[in-house]
Amino acid sequence: MKFITFEYQDTLKFGLLFDDRILSIDEFRNLNDFIINHTSKDMENLSKFGKNSANLNLSDVKIKAPIITPNQDVICLGINYIEHAKESYRYKKIQFNGTRNEAVYFSKRVNEAVGSGEFVLSHSDITEKLDYEVELALIIKKDAKNVGFENAKDYIFGYTIFNDFSARDLQNRHKQWYFGKSLDGFCAMGPFVATADEIDSKNLDIKSFVNGELRQNSNTSKMIFNENYVISELSQAMTLKAGTIIALGTPSGVGMGFEPPKFLKSKDEVVCEIDGLGRLVNIIK
Amino acid sequence: MKFITFEYQDTLKFGLLFDDRILSIDEFRNLNDFIINHTSKDMENLSKFGKNSANLNLSDVKIKAPIITPNQDVICLGINYIEHAKESYRYKKIQFNGTRNEAVYFSKRVNEAVGSGEFVLSHSDITEKLDYEVELALIIKKDAKNVGFENAKDYIFGYTIFNDFSARDLQNRHKQWYFGKSLDGFCAMGPFVATADEIDSKNLDIKSFVNGELRQNSNTSKMIFNENYVISELSQAMTLKAGTIIALGTPSGVGMGFEPPKFLKSKDEVVCEIDGLGRLVNIIK
Repeated sequence: MKFITFEYQDTLKFGLLFDDRILSIDEFRNLNDFIINHTSKDMENLSKFGKNSANLNLSDVKIKAPIITPNQDVICLGINYIEHAKESYRYKKIQFNGTRNEAVYFSKRVNEAVGSGEFVLSHSDITEKLDYEVELALIIKKDAKNVGFENAKDYIFGYTIFNDFSARDLQNRHKQWYFGKSLDGFCAMGPFVATADEIDSKNLDIKSFVNGELRQNSNTSKMIFNENYVISELSQAMTLKAGTIIALGTPSGVGMGFEPPKFLKSKDEVVCEIDGLGRLVNIIK
Repeated sequence: MKFITFEYQDTLKFGLLFDDRILSIDEFRNLNDFIINHTSKDMENLSKFGKNSANLNLSDVKIKAPIITPNQDVICLGINYIEHAKESYRYKKIQFNGTRNEAVYFSKRVNEAVGSGEFVLSHSDITEKLDYEVELALIIKKDAKNVGFENAKDYIFGYTIFNDFSARDLQNRHKQWYFGKSLDGFCAMGPFVATADEIDSKNLDIKSFVNGELRQNSNTSKMIFNENYVISELSQAMTLKAGTIIALGTPSGVGMGFEPPKFLKSKDEVVCEIDGLGRLVNIIK
């Protein structure tokens, strides 16, 4: 199933997407509330009866980020593809030894996630190095503590495309990445969340384009630390509450990876694509 | 005024603390809700009539963290006192040039903040280097965007003591500090929140003790980047929503600063004190 958040007649709603039709779900406040509080019976009913009741046309709604206001900051993986590790180290002029032994976790404050079709602010007054990062993001279904490597999938509600916009100058100047990752509007997500049963998350083509030019082109099989590793490792120490969003890192081809770098500027169009998860399109404002 | 969150007859409540008596406030869900949604009239009434209506005895309640579940991760300042910068660099065997030109921001996930008198888990299965950090924390009163240096105080609801428990091995092994700072129970806060008008935040003695031994002993005047700087800088880029907690860094004297280091172990008692903000006491479990 595909969950989508949208505006219809000036009201914010969420529901299920079936091709070009939508079933509005009105029994929960929003998708986050649904993820945290739904029962398996709810899922069963939606799966059985949803399609026939879908009575809104996709063309009549405005798509929003699936989860506009996450309950906590988004957990992000840093340098989780080897080719991206190489370009990052080259950009920072640091020697790279070719392996990564430990996952790098940081977080991103998301006041209001941006949906597909919405603008992303350039913040040109405080950054000259605005960059994009296509990522596969997962959403936790139920509180996860001490989860075994093999059981991680049981805790995943679904997946979506995530663009981890980054101000490289702020990110590096302040040592810890948090600030340069957390500017208003720096999280784009969507267009929908596909439930875990629909997605073979370990083998998905993952791409980004800027103004039609292919920039990132990889496959999620090339992640260094996959979702099983990440959920298992983190949950040994911290409870990953239902609704937690984890973005699993970006492959090579980000702006800072080019020589000279190709940072974003006003009016650029950034498109992110992942198999089975659609296209996330944003214009820099 | 001093706001306190507490359990009374198995119910979680919050209210105003007057010496050893408490006025329960029942018109808001919790202190976070109050901070976000109160009006100046509410404050006025509490200030005028609160004391006479205070009818609970402090000794009859169990103190909890003032804000148990923050809406977003806590924003923390890294190495924001020079003497602590020195000890941190020495511990990591990195050369320190004696100055810090840029503030270091990171975040700490807080699933459930721990109050004064409550246990803090040692997590001895995954860390051997549990450390304490007494910090002055501020809480944002109203959404802050593009705040000028001089106007920062207008955006502060109040202050509390914050113990930024840290797993030094995880913090360093994973490069970005987020994971080693975000273990369950690693945020202790309280015992109360004093409103901004009561606290001269730029000149407060700040101390910590472990099993009665004075470990940290400094003054908030020694911060490198003060609240005006931090609120102004961050809010140029990101909206600091009402309820945001910012912990302003720790002075020297943390466990890793000693040679050999003095990390925490089960049954240790950690006491944090800041002028006008009381004592935050936690036992390691």
